[in-house]
Amino acid sequence: MSEREKAIGVFDSGVGGLTVFREMMKQMPKERLIFFGDTARVPYGSKSKETVTQYSRQIIRFLKSQSVKAIVIACNTASALALDDIEKETDIPIIGVVKPGAVSASKKTRNGKIGLIGTEATISSGVYERLLHEMDGRFRIIGKACPLFVPLVEEGLIDDPVTTEIAGRYLADLIDSDIDTLIMGCTHYPLIKDTIKKVVGEKVELVNPAYETALECLEMLKEKDITNDREIELGETPYRFFVSDEAEKFKTIANMILPYGILGAKKIAIEEY
Amino acid sequence: MSEREKAIGVFDSGVGGLTVFREMMKQMPKERLIFFGDTARVPYGSKSKETVTQYSRQIIRFLKSQSVKAIVIACNTASALALDDIEKETDIPIIGVVKPGAVSASKKTRNGKIGLIGTEATISSGVYERLLHEMDGRFRIIGKACPLFVPLVEEGLIDDPVTTEIAGRYLADLIDSDIDTLIMGCTHYPLIKDTIKKVVGEKVELVNPAYETALECLEMLKEKDITNDREIELGETPYRFFVSDEAEKFKTIANMILPYGILGAKKIAIEEY
Repeated sequence: MSEREKAIGVFDSGVGGLTVFREMMKQMPKERLIFFGDTARVPYGSKSKETVTQYSRQIIRFLKSQSVKAIVIACNTASALALDDIEKETDIPIIGVVKPGAVSASKKTRNGKIGLIGTEATISSGVYERLLHEMDGRFRIIGKACPLFVPLVEEGLIDDPVTTEIAGRYLADLIDSDIDTLIMGCTHYPLIKDTIKKVVGEKVELVNPAYETALECLEMLKEKDITNDREIELGETPYRFFVSDEAEKFKTIANMILPYGILGAKKIAIEEY
Repeated sequence: MSEREKAIGVFDSGVGGLTVFREMMKQMPKERLIFFGDTARVPYGSKSKETVTQYSRQIIRFLKSQSVKAIVIACNTASALALDDIEKETDIPIIGVVKPGAVSASKKTRNGKIGLIGTEATISSGVYERLLHEMDGRFRIIGKACPLFVPLVEEGLIDDPVTTEIAGRYLADLIDSDIDTLIMGCTHYPLIKDTIKKVVGEKVELVNPAYETALECLEMLKEKDITNDREIELGETPYRFFVSDEAEKFKTIANMILPYGILGAKKIAIEEY
């Protein structure tokens, strides 16, 4: 298999990263994709930089054993905490979701007041803030950790008064700060974007890093001249899914996010990588 | 150090098990206790039997390396999913929180209708049901997984209308089923017992397995004749804490649950055990 024909590896702490995977399917239909969800150790958002970096290293070793040509970290926490260190150690191109999200926000904002919501680990890492300040020192970033959003989404309370109430509390300070742009800095959040939009109002533009990340990945492949140009052959399955815990539950949630039913996911002993 | 003077090992997926640890401190003030919280891989409640059993085995190997005389699994999910298998492999006494909770419920119920709340894994394991039916085949157990309770507690919404609203939804079927006893089958739940009590009403008795587990542990030590009879010496710290992720965050929550401030927790590479 030539370099071009190799798959792109995509990973997340669990299933949320499939929102990025879905965008990649849409924007680069000729590419083979491999997804790994660390469902045995999910979530990453409340864990330390050291632990998240160690887990990310193991996953990258696994993805490389599947001979991928590039890696996308489809998890805000791992992108925020681990990408800087891991980038230096990895000999294939690797991108995260943080930078594409920050670039998009920097283009959308008019008043320079940018809201950021994400996990505790993402917010306290200060990575979005650092990147945005490198682009323009006048940007003001107002961050807020929203630890209940992921469990609310996973409990299916997508359009529910409880989610609206919690969103109202989390977002009050951001609205008071007069933000005009809000980065949804966690891959689960686009699933409740209607509720978030209702709470922050029409004037605030939402940034979904999943879309921007798929776009950046495509640009990177073009720049390195490793896009796949051949059509996927009839009968070949271009998408493969791996998890660290039982595959059944993953399939159920995956089939809610992806536009088609997935046939199976393979369980991997990720600790051994 | 004689067998009697050795510590008792206590473990949980995270910090919730400290509610059991606290009861043990009260009920057996002469015993040395070692706590391990698997904060890097928390939570267990949404994970598979195989994964939870593997994690429990690693923790038991670690606790044995600290030469404990007995082990208490202070986690409902690990007790429900892993204890049966692990008991056979372990050469020191080991107990979980499920059986003491079930015994207590069987004594408290008058109409035989027992409610059970816990994580998805605990509820779907059917372990409480099996144990209760062994005691009395006429018991009717009505179980309900409450996945939002743990994140709500960890977000500090202990006495909050949102928690009351969610509790109302989770517990509606149990109330309709005319239960007179409710097992709080997750170590976090006693922290919101006032909210739960308000929702289920005065007529329903709550069972807190933490209390019963400490009691059973003491009885077991007496039966095996391995209680510690010597006073802890002045200057000795009888309680030691280990975690798999960063110790700082653990300390903050631990100091909310325990009656005294803990000085430190040591981080262990649990995957290596």
